[in-house]
Amino acid sequence: MMTGQEYKDSLRKRNIKVYIKGKLLKSNEVIDHPFIRGHVNAAALTYDLANDPMYEDLMTVTSHLTGKKINRFTHIHQSVDDLVKKVKMLRMISQKTGTCYQRCVGFDAMNATYSVTYEMDKKLGTNYHERFKEFLLHVQDTDIMVAGAMTDPKGDRSLRPSQQADPDLFVHVVSKDDKGIIIRGAKAHMTGMVNSHEMLIMPTMGMKKEDKDYAVCCAVPVDAPGIIHIFGRQTNDDRKCEGDIDQGNAKYGIVGGECLTVLEDVFVPWNSVFMCGETEFSGALVERFACYHRQNYGGCKGGVSDVVIGASAVMADYSGYSKAGHIKEKINEMIHMAETLYACSIACSAEGKPTASGAYFVDPLLANVSKHNVTKLIYDIDRLAQDIAGGIVATMPSESDLNDPEIGKYIRKYLKGVSSVPAEDRMKIARLIENMTGGTALVESMHGAGSPQAQKVMYSKLSNLEHKKLCALNIAGIGTEEKEDKKVD
Amino acid sequence: MMTGQEYKDSLRKRNIKVYIKGKLLKSNEVIDHPFIRGHVNAAALTYDLANDPMYEDLMTVTSHLTGKKINRFTHIHQSVDDLVKKVKMLRMISQKTGTCYQRCVGFDAMNATYSVTYEMDKKLGTNYHERFKEFLLHVQDTDIMVAGAMTDPKGDRSLRPSQQADPDLFVHVVSKDDKGIIIRGAKAHMTGMVNSHEMLIMPTMGMKKEDKDYAVCCAVPVDAPGIIHIFGRQTNDDRKCEGDIDQGNAKYGIVGGECLTVLEDVFVPWNSVFMCGETEFSGALVERFACYHRQNYGGCKGGVSDVVIGASAVMADYSGYSKAGHIKEKINEMIHMAETLYACSIACSAEGKPTASGAYFVDPLLANVSKHNVTKLIYDIDRLAQDIAGGIVATMPSESDLNDPEIGKYIRKYLKGVSSVPAEDRMKIARLIENMTGGTALVESMHGAGSPQAQKVMYSKLSNLEHKKLCALNIAGIGTEEKEDKKVD
Amino acid sequence: MMTGQEYKDSLRKRNIKVYIKGKLLKSNEVIDHPFIRGHVNAAALTYDLANDPMYEDLMTVTSHLTGKKINRFTHIHQSVDDLVKKVKMLRMISQKTGTCYQRCVGFDAMNATYSVTYEMDKKLGTNYHERFKEFLLHVQDTDIMVAGAMTDPKGDRSLRPSQQADPDLFVHVVSKDDKGIIIRGAKAHMTGMVNSHEMLIMPTMGMKKEDKDYAVCCAVPVDAPGIIHIFGRQTNDDRKCEGDIDQGNAKYGIVGGECLTVLEDVFVPWNSVFMCGETEFSGALVERFACYHRQNYGGCKGGVSDVVIGASAVMADYSGYSKAGHIKEKINEMIHMAETLYACSIACSAEGKPTASGAYFVDPLLANVSKHNVTKLIYDIDRLAQDIAGGIVATMPSESDLNDPEIGKYIRKYLKGVSSVPAEDRMKIARLIENMTGGTALVESMHGAGSPQAQKVMYSKLSNLEHKKLCALNIAGIGTEEKEDKKVD
Amino acid sequence: MMTGQEYKDSLRKRNIKVYIKGKLLKSNEVIDHPFIRGHVNAAALTYDLANDPMYEDLMTVTSHLTGKKINRFTHIHQSVDDLVKKVKMLRMISQKTGTCYQRCVGFDAMNATYSVTYEMDKKLGTNYHERFKEFLLHVQDTDIMVAGAMTDPKGDRSLRPSQQADPDLFVHVVSKDDKGIIIRGAKAHMTGMVNSHEMLIMPTMGMKKEDKDYAVCCAVPVDAPGIIHIFGRQTNDDRKCEGDIDQGNAKYGIVGGECLTVLEDVFVPWNSVFMCGETEFSGALVERFACYHRQNYGGCKGGVSDVVIGASAVMADYSGYSKAGHIKEKINEMIHMAETLYACSIACSAEGKPTASGAYFVDPLLANVSKHNVTKLIYDIDRLAQDIAGGIVATMPSESDLNDPEIGKYIRKYLKGVSSVPAEDRMKIARLIENMTGGTALVESMHGAGSPQAQKVMYSKLSNLEHKKLCALNIAGIGTEEKEDKKVD
Repeated sequence: MMTGQEYKDSLRKRNIKVYIKGKLLKSNEVIDHPFIRGHVNAAALTYDLANDPMYEDLMTVTSHLTGKKINRFTHIHQSVDDLVKKVKMLRMISQKTGTCYQRCVGFDAMNATYSVTYEMDKKLGTNYHERFKEFLLHVQDTDIMVAGAMTDPKGDRSLRPSQQADPDLFVHVVSKDDKGIIIRGAKAHMTGMVNSHEMLIMPTMGMKKEDKDYAVCCAVPVDAPGIIHIFGRQTNDDRKCEGDIDQGNAKYGIVGGECLTVLEDVFVPWNSVFMCGETEFSGALVERFACYHRQNYGGCKGGVSDVVIGASAVMADYSGYSKAGHIKEKINEMIHMAETLYACSIACSAEGKPTASGAYFVDPLLANVSKHNVTKLIYDIDRLAQDIAGGIVATMPSESDLNDPEIGKYIRKYLKGVSSVPAEDRMKIARLIENMTGGTALVESMHGAGSPQAQKVMYSKLSNLEHKKLCALNIAGIGTEEKEDKKVD
Repeated sequence: MMTGQEYKDSLRKRNIKVYIKGKLLKSNEVIDHPFIRGHVNAAALTYDLANDPMYEDLMTVTSHLTGKKINRFTHIHQSVDDLVKKVKMLRMISQKTGTCYQRCVGFDAMNATYSVTYEMDKKLGTNYHERFKEFLLHVQDTDIMVAGAMTDPKGDRSLRPSQQADPDLFVHVVSKDDKGIIIRGAKAHMTGMVNSHEMLIMPTMGMKKEDKDYAVCCAVPVDAPGIIHIFGRQTNDDRKCEGDIDQGNAKYGIVGGECLTVLEDVFVPWNSVFMCGETEFSGALVERFACYHRQNYGGCKGGVSDVVIGASAVMADYSGYSKAGHIKEKINEMIHMAETLYACSIACSAEGKPTASGAYFVDPLLANVSKHNVTKLIYDIDRLAQDIAGGIVATMPSESDLNDPEIGKYIRKYLKGVSSVPAEDRMKIARLIENMTGGTALVESMHGAGSPQAQKVMYSKLSNLEHKKLCALNIAGIGTEEKEDKKVD
Repeated sequence: MMTGQEYKDSLRKRNIKVYIKGKLLKSNEVIDHPFIRGHVNAAALTYDLANDPMYEDLMTVTSHLTGKKINRFTHIHQSVDDLVKKVKMLRMISQKTGTCYQRCVGFDAMNATYSVTYEMDKKLGTNYHERFKEFLLHVQDTDIMVAGAMTDPKGDRSLRPSQQADPDLFVHVVSKDDKGIIIRGAKAHMTGMVNSHEMLIMPTMGMKKEDKDYAVCCAVPVDAPGIIHIFGRQTNDDRKCEGDIDQGNAKYGIVGGECLTVLEDVFVPWNSVFMCGETEFSGALVERFACYHRQNYGGCKGGVSDVVIGASAVMADYSGYSKAGHIKEKINEMIHMAETLYACSIACSAEGKPTASGAYFVDPLLANVSKHNVTKLIYDIDRLAQDIAGGIVATMPSESDLNDPEIGKYIRKYLKGVSSVPAEDRMKIARLIENMTGGTALVESMHGAGSPQAQKVMYSKLSNLEHKKLCALNIAGIGTEEKEDKKVD
Repeated sequence: MMTGQEYKDSLRKRNIKVYIKGKLLKSNEVIDHPFIRGHVNAAALTYDLANDPMYEDLMTVTSHLTGKKINRFTHIHQSVDDLVKKVKMLRMISQKTGTCYQRCVGFDAMNATYSVTYEMDKKLGTNYHERFKEFLLHVQDTDIMVAGAMTDPKGDRSLRPSQQADPDLFVHVVSKDDKGIIIRGAKAHMTGMVNSHEMLIMPTMGMKKEDKDYAVCCAVPVDAPGIIHIFGRQTNDDRKCEGDIDQGNAKYGIVGGECLTVLEDVFVPWNSVFMCGETEFSGALVERFACYHRQNYGGCKGGVSDVVIGASAVMADYSGYSKAGHIKEKINEMIHMAETLYACSIACSAEGKPTASGAYFVDPLLANVSKHNVTKLIYDIDRLAQDIAGGIVATMPSESDLNDPEIGKYIRKYLKGVSSVPAEDRMKIARLIENMTGGTALVESMHGAGSPQAQKVMYSKLSNLEHKKLCALNIAGIGTEEKEDKKVD
């Protein structure tokens, strides 16, 4: 297992092409760019904590392939306990970073690909699962970071991939030979991509036969020829080029550091290809990844909410109103919501079941419920945080003002709350709240792991509405035998 | 294990005093009264299902005391699996009854008393736990139904028990001798009491030293001398004296059939006394019972919601609008909420831990979250059900109109929805929705297992706010060492 | 203007056929039936208050037809002030009745018919408006109560009137001659019908050409040959046959006393026909009525909410927790919602405009907003009322128990809250809250004046979305000239 | 009346001290700073629109002092119509700017001071009202912009002004002589201050006798000696130093451009002092200003919401999902909320009443309701906007990437939605949504015109809870005579 430092060192060796605000970064300095540095620190923590005996139980696990101790982020879940510990691990790390550490995406992509390739091979006689196990062994051995790459740009959302005016709006196979395949397209909103080693590409939705070329799953190094990453803007990203305070979370940044990854005729050798045209399994792969990923949100956002709640409580302490009844009510309400999020993630894990491959899968209905709650409750939690924190979050002078020899004294004088706490500390907490309740953070809670409608439509599919109707008919005494009821559950 | 019929027969043998609307019922006919009959049927189902091989795994379990197969409702939880199965059992039964079957109250009271008496004896050298085990053995052997009896009338809520103008507003010990104790007072909102065999009395809140006489826990037959039960009114209870349709749920009724139980100087022998003046353990007993009971609500109300959702979907089918987009959205939203409730109950169970006695206890924070969500989401689910069902729920003519030779034809003609479904069936579903979304059912979701504020105040107690503050301070870089963070979790 | 007593006397003279629970009532005793009595009392108050000098300004107005002083409920709005005073009148009466007094339905129907017949005549050269003015004069002169009759049973909601298996599921003209027309069908959810003198029948929705026979508007005496009224069940209606307390609101009842009115080949002379086949104006009539009626809901439900809020505050006083912070927060939240409802009704009135006929019409967009808020906020207000009131609302013994010589003492002892208030008063308030927050009352808030979706679909129609898009495009600097913006508003 | 250009020119003549990020700006270039420019443009629009005949009715009015035509922003409301037109004017301007134009603060401050000084003089025999009229005449004649200055830094919120460790945490009089007074302290969150001419200082809350020195109201030029303005940071402020697209709203910016205004021993001549020690009127002044200011929020935020709704609809068009049912539902829901906000502002205006001074005042209860709804519904509207807009809002590459010769082609290719719309336009709309739903904009909706709790506490004061209780008691038939009810209303 790598340490955080080793992880960073390994990233410098890549020959990656990353653009930020129209500038191409030097390959070995990508991780030092102020826009990227924090995300790297957050991901590095997933390495360091795995080497910390205090967190051994959550952060490490024994590989079912090799019997060696590995970082949990490279593991294939072998039990309900693994699923539950994943959630607890995520909450714990979030409490330390206050933001995304990105590594769950590849983790979930690997778990999804593992079981689906197994089932695909069983049904179709293909050989993808063995190939994938080789890839997995490599990941576990080297402890590299894998970016999960699912979301395509999608173009006109009313059209399927093959109907688009531009065929590249979804990643697709443009040619293949006996050595491998050439793919083209782009992946959007790529979390942690610029500080990963490999990406695991998956289709963005269930494909129909006419979209055969779009049913592709494969692993590619992030610095393979033909790949360009264009880093996205985050809320207040320019502040990262200044001092620390105004960033709010100078060490770990905001959310996941997403980029648009362009794949311009990228070659992938066959041993890294795990699906190529098997449209009938594309939906299963998407759904499995989505459920694993939706499982996370009550864990990581639960932890992030803990920080928001803590920061709100500190702000109330610093401002002298922590004893007000309505403040306590609001903090309790925030706790209620954070624990509701967490409970759903625990539940979908506790209700997990083994797949044919032996890998454990979450309860898909409850996993969707878990993420869906995040799309609403995080907004409510953050609204209450802004309520408690006060208008200062939106109008506070800058760190430069604080440090100015002429006017710094006014900042220190007038931004003070209770007299025992320096204004600087109050400013730091206000900036942290600003950082965590703002634009990028909210949007990520909405759309990460799929937009709310993506969860909502799963309910009709995953919940047995016919059984519910039968229950009602039985109780109302309408035309059914009670015995029938026993058959369903 | 008794069957439902044996359970009913056994109830007839009691010498119980029950008043309904100012009339004393004949003791052996109590369970035949239209107001009570449905509740008895619901409770009887907990007996019949235990004898049904299909539900053996959920409904029965091996006693840790005797090794015999027992009805789960008499069991002391020995594992996380027991806690989880309790929730699943509750949801399953609710799907069949659409309402409360009451037996969980005594179940939870016994589990709470079991572990608290153990701890009390350890600390104080008393002998309550052994006494209680004897009582428990009796319950398991005879499969009797035990009513949990916690809530006192409380009088002036701003005063403690010993401060009330009338000392009887909380149940208390009025005298004791070497044979036993005499208690006086009343218990309010007593679910399932009139169709139980024994009641397990507990204090209604943590008592201080000056309220010593009020710290009393004991078992008493429901027909002991000095006990009078006054049955409460439910929404539309008079309809139970008419035909079936207008009741909505003619077989199982509405909620739990609560009564006010008056204890007028009731004698309790020492071997049935499990706490008598040990104020320091009264709070623990209340809290433990409350958490076990709050655990249930995502199970039973999840199942009840399944029926409401199913009934709404049937009503949409019968009325011809089940394909409308907004109807589907609303049904999906109802499913989302029902599963959120369920997930919280599963989570607090999955996170359960053993107590010193070996009995398993739920995660108390998540158990409170579970119930708290019910106090809001059931209202939202029922609102959507009324939205989907239409105004007919509030203005529908009676069953007698349907059956009238003169005007029945108009009912059959004009209350029809889609032409393939008889108006009578549509009426039955409308009445079921009316039954399930109305007054008593809603209020029970609000106040059963404690009012919402009772859950909310637990958050400050059970959630580690100081840790959350520390997380925020660490990330904001304010005056703490990271090392410290590791100490807390 | 009639007094309440004269109103009641006049009702006894009708030869009306009303069925309740399968029994035909004696025509002159209809208003004495316990199920109906309260509704009559509420409607009678609209007569008595008009004779009370204290309320002269709100309750009476000068007829624009005759210059005589009339009851406002028979008036055609002649100004914004009339529209605003209507809302204030409704809130004031609701504060006295705590429930529906039904007379606004005919009031709104007359205002809608007045302006639409005017426009129809202008366009089509018909003579409906003069006919209608004659009818109106009669209503103003005699101060009779008119029931608005819009909602048809509708059958299969996915089919239009003429597509139904049974053509009678919407009221339609079955034949006509030079004397008049014969209509058949039924009207559902008829508020105040059984205690009105006339009904004003309107189509239930905009009709297309193929539904020509269904585009009919006319006035008919409620006791015309061929008419049968079947009274609907309300929550706890049977309690009205017992004592006072358990009714909650013994004087005025619950909501509007709805019935199903069957029209079995009813003859209507031409001078009472105000639309007959003019499908192109059917939609306008429906919409105009709907908007007038939706205007009301922030008025009457604002007043009803005042009573619910007051009752909750009294219950808190009586129980000893009115000083608790969370109780105050909840009451303030209830006030916030009640005033939001009221504000919307005031706003749609203040923004009213004259129609071509001179009658004033509300702002239709804001009128829809007004009703739509009721479909959600009344549920929230009532939920908080049940929260504050406590479980007693759902489990309280009966009035007969209170009056029983044996057990009455226990009721008086144990249902007491603070020692200074008799248990009986606390019971009365609990029953009032039960009455007002229960089934029928909630459902009426949902579906009265149209279900929520009926309001929601109006937003796309009434709100200028294209203008909103243009605003956004201008600010974003996309392809539009600023000058264009000025053209729209 | 000035034009926008004249307004800007006049600002250049000030000798104002403004700091941004630790740098003192050149006095005559303050309005050119990228952080400030947009706010100036927005305020300038209030001048230009007043000169546009199309908006004459909303934007201009006849002065009651001089009979001259003036900009409405300098007017004292003389009728309900004035109050209503204020709201309509605000919504109209917001639809053009998509953000705050700041001028209402001084407008409201002047209206509040006008009527309170009148009442103060009547009661205390002071001469403040005449002084204030002189000031007002000057404002109306010169059409200058006045900043309302109420909020003090407040320090420890659990302490009153005179109890603070530092006496300057609230603005106070440090000395006075026959020429005038010297004041010290600071005003926080000062909207539009750096582009105003004068500020009108008011106390931040009702003062008690011991806080006499803090009860001060006066007018001061923004560039008076001793005044320093420290400009606050806004979300994404640094983007204003780059190109246009990434700003979202390059012309008008975000919210109000707030600053911290330090008053370091500033001299104010007596003729500009309108309160000095009259603590008993400080509360009235605060409340009156607060109500006028809360009135606005349904107007300006209604207009801002129109832009957000329009932008969301455009984004749906551009992405190809504007026909999806759930998208339409969400847009209708947003419209519902925006109109609810607007309705409350219209209602509190329509219910306005004259004060003793003749100036019209809004209904204070409904004005609080208006603002309070904003603190919740704007969050819900913006959440739905982010839902509709998609994750692109949080991860979109920069304008520099779009313009880059190497990678611009990828941006244009992959950020396209429907093929007929250039990616650049879709980016512009996404950035506008990002701008309007982000941090600063949300926080301003929460805390502008007072935090939500400030509104909530007004409900108990302004709503007649005793009357509501009486209504409930009357209906429940508890111990009151109906006659009494008539006395209250």
